[in-house]
Amino acid sequence: MSKRVTLSVLADLVDGEISGDSGVMIEGFAPLESADEGDVTFLVKGNRSDLLEKTRASAVIVPMAMESKEKNLIRVNDPYLASAIIHTHLLEEKVDFTGIHPQASIGRDCIHGSRITIGPMAVIGDGVEIGERVVIGPGSVVGDNVVIGDDSVLKANVTVEHGCRIGSRVTLHPGVVIGSDGFGYASDQKGYHVKRPQVGIVVIEDGVEVGANSCIDRATYGVTLIKQGAKIDNLVQVAHNVHVGENSLLVAQVGIAGSTTLGRNVVMGGKASAKGHIDLGDGVMVAAKGGVHTSLGKGEVVGGSPAIPIKKWVKAAAIYAKLPEVWKDLKAMRKEINELQEKK
Amino acid sequence: MSKRVTLSVLADLVDGEISGDSGVMIEGFAPLESADEGDVTFLVKGNRSDLLEKTRASAVIVPMAMESKEKNLIRVNDPYLASAIIHTHLLEEKVDFTGIHPQASIGRDCIHGSRITIGPMAVIGDGVEIGERVVIGPGSVVGDNVVIGDDSVLKANVTVEHGCRIGSRVTLHPGVVIGSDGFGYASDQKGYHVKRPQVGIVVIEDGVEVGANSCIDRATYGVTLIKQGAKIDNLVQVAHNVHVGENSLLVAQVGIAGSTTLGRNVVMGGKASAKGHIDLGDGVMVAAKGGVHTSLGKGEVVGGSPAIPIKKWVKAAAIYAKLPEVWKDLKAMRKEINELQEKK
Amino acid sequence: MSKRVTLSVLADLVDGEISGDSGVMIEGFAPLESADEGDVTFLVKGNRSDLLEKTRASAVIVPMAMESKEKNLIRVNDPYLASAIIHTHLLEEKVDFTGIHPQASIGRDCIHGSRITIGPMAVIGDGVEIGERVVIGPGSVVGDNVVIGDDSVLKANVTVEHGCRIGSRVTLHPGVVIGSDGFGYASDQKGYHVKRPQVGIVVIEDGVEVGANSCIDRATYGVTLIKQGAKIDNLVQVAHNVHVGENSLLVAQVGIAGSTTLGRNVVMGGKASAKGHIDLGDGVMVAAKGGVHTSLGKGEVVGGSPAIPIKKWVKAAAIYAKLPEVWKDLKAMRKEINELQEKK
Repeated sequence: MSKRVTLSVLADLVDGEISGDSGVMIEGFAPLESADEGDVTFLVKGNRSDLLEKTRASAVIVPMAMESKEKNLIRVNDPYLASAIIHTHLLEEKVDFTGIHPQASIGRDCIHGSRITIGPMAVIGDGVEIGERVVIGPGSVVGDNVVIGDDSVLKANVTVEHGCRIGSRVTLHPGVVIGSDGFGYASDQKGYHVKRPQVGIVVIEDGVEVGANSCIDRATYGVTLIKQGAKIDNLVQVAHNVHVGENSLLVAQVGIAGSTTLGRNVVMGGKASAKGHIDLGDGVMVAAKGGVHTSLGKGEVVGGSPAIPIKKWVKAAAIYAKLPEVWKDLKAMRKEINELQEKK
Repeated sequence: MSKRVTLSVLADLVDGEISGDSGVMIEGFAPLESADEGDVTFLVKGNRSDLLEKTRASAVIVPMAMESKEKNLIRVNDPYLASAIIHTHLLEEKVDFTGIHPQASIGRDCIHGSRITIGPMAVIGDGVEIGERVVIGPGSVVGDNVVIGDDSVLKANVTVEHGCRIGSRVTLHPGVVIGSDGFGYASDQKGYHVKRPQVGIVVIEDGVEVGANSCIDRATYGVTLIKQGAKIDNLVQVAHNVHVGENSLLVAQVGIAGSTTLGRNVVMGGKASAKGHIDLGDGVMVAAKGGVHTSLGKGEVVGGSPAIPIKKWVKAAAIYAKLPEVWKDLKAMRKEINELQEKK
Repeated sequence: MSKRVTLSVLADLVDGEISGDSGVMIEGFAPLESADEGDVTFLVKGNRSDLLEKTRASAVIVPMAMESKEKNLIRVNDPYLASAIIHTHLLEEKVDFTGIHPQASIGRDCIHGSRITIGPMAVIGDGVEIGERVVIGPGSVVGDNVVIGDDSVLKANVTVEHGCRIGSRVTLHPGVVIGSDGFGYASDQKGYHVKRPQVGIVVIEDGVEVGANSCIDRATYGVTLIKQGAKIDNLVQVAHNVHVGENSLLVAQVGIAGSTTLGRNVVMGGKASAKGHIDLGDGVMVAAKGGVHTSLGKGEVVGGSPAIPIKKWVKAAAIYAKLPEVWKDLKAMRKEINELQEKK
């Protein structure tokens, strides 16, 4: 289902320089080991020209410094990035938008683009707005008055609750829940928890991707906001009133507590977490499993729980493993000091 | 969709004292910044009377000690609690129970209350009992012989497996799974795992709320029990045969291993966990990410993993960050002691 | 719904020795406390013969060394294992395969075994192959060209994306997502993340069980592989290109990052995690909440985060709790050494 294009078309996509035959026809993309004639492949490291000679691929995306007399090359600054762009291009094709499946359920007063797919067993509430070229997968449920922008895809069994706004080019993977109630209660003197109504919404901007079974809660009031280009992995929890900045990355099983704000290009490793009501500045990085308890300035890199600067954490963790030795040393030194004191 | 009531009606709900016009009509609730005429709002702290004067709200719920000549007030002991009660009251309205959607699937021998809503694509098994004013959302699946009490709500794409019992006023958010098999195996000498049949059920008592994509496994035998008023956040794991006590709070991504028992009003912070076969007494609190390995007595407060008393943990964590310094000190002292000894 | 068989039939299943009446009829299985006439029960520990005399069960599975004059016994080497096998046997019955529900949606060019159940609101894509005696639960979605082996069960609201291959005797619990996109991006100089197409699949071998709301991502290229007999608990994340070895156990909320390989019979405790691109040898055990950052050899047992050998971790964790004391000691010793030095 790939396209069939000349190497020069692909090189132009990534500002690459061609070495070899710019007219060779490419119709597929595969990793080095499994690439075959007609495929383009890629090599990230400049020092593995041995691999270059072995591949059966018709062309190879390589670092700018690399050369080959035998292979057709696209030379670029960043082969990893270029290969993602070229692979994506080769996969793009005319999707058959199949319209609304007869076994879907559509509410009243909905509007939608001219080319869409709504799968079997999908349920669309009342007053929903669906853009052009939107795909809503089988079994997905879209609540009343939700807005979904152009070219967005809801895979199977996704739930978007009432009133939430999904931008363009957004992908929600299976099992994602957008707009469930935030976890907010006021407790009385008997320890009984009175629910605080959660009347805000979730706004997901353009180009966001949310992984399987992740949850983004609606705001108590106002919005829980995922800004454009942010990428969220599987089983992630984003609580009410959180703001996730542009192009931030939340790896699997991350949890962010209520009202916390992340700047641009924040990276939280797998299972990392942030306490509620704090700010993580632009470019903050939290190592996997890190637990952030305080606000962090621009560009800070932390690890551990409670999280501390990453270099300190790496050292502290190494010494943690030696604590039995530290303890023994301490006891010995105590004894020796006592002996020295007695000798006085 | 709110009601329209006098301020005195609202004050009566929360044993509040009115200062100002008890007859002013209220029809909405909003936070201080966005409240407008006709709204009631609230102020938690008594020292921010500056905010009080700025709001456009028609009335403000405030701490008992607070006064104002310009604003209509409801003075209460706990404005946060009172605002939850009043906001909930204002949102209550006559729900249109729409009955069983023609695209739902209903099994044999089910009984249900006179006013219910079963959404499109919902699947109800055989022998299910559904109370009055129950809402079962689109795409939710209710297994055979399940019982659901009055006024409970299953949102979209919820699964309740066969035989489980859901109380009254229970809310299950999208993607929740109740009654999946516990993780129980007996391993043979070749390391192959033989499944132990999981033949118990889950019992969820009145007033419980379970967050999006959380899982509560059925018991091996007997019951996994969530007692009344307990509130469970998103992506929480409750294993087979666990008992969660009344009004306990489990924050997002908590995990509780098999056969562990939690008392009343236990609070487990985000990502906290408890080992299997232990008891956490009434009022135990576990800090976020804490990992409890042993039983805890009434009211104990712990943090860290393995969890230790919270005060000790806070101190230990602070020193952990200084371990590189500790290590350096130790090495220096070792050398100095050696020198002192040589001088003898 | 159990069978009704003689005790000797059950004893033969587990190579057990009967003491007492081998012809007594058994039709149920229950734990000691609740077992009644007609039931078989079990006792794991040989030193609790007091319990043996109290049960009303018609027979008891006991350790080989145990004896009783009053009770019918099946004596075996491993009563826990034998009871799992016997209980499973007693529950087996002729399932009524009910065929394809009229409210299911089936794609083109599918083939399936002669005895299957496809529940209401299930959605099967095009070109799907379904084996004999397969059950696909209500609301589950199976993508195009998926293959499902004999005797496998997909419970409710499961999603299996296109092209994935599910073996025989596999159980996928409610909300499981198989074959969602891996979390793979190439970032450009402006910090924008370009998605790397995820064109591989997931292969799940025979006898695997996957718990509620767990996610297994498809490979970037090639396969994400769950080998035969592996058991995965709820809310587990398995990233792209991970290989999980035969009979491995992943307890709830485990997370495994991309391209990591687990050998046979690896056990990862609740919330444990492994970094990407590492290898965990056969029989590796990771304690609950452990975070593995480096490859581990056969049989290594680790705990903590970063994970270290378990014995070292247990000692280090004990001393961690005493760090405030360590700190105080260090300060005192520092002072005393200074005093000793001054006296020179």
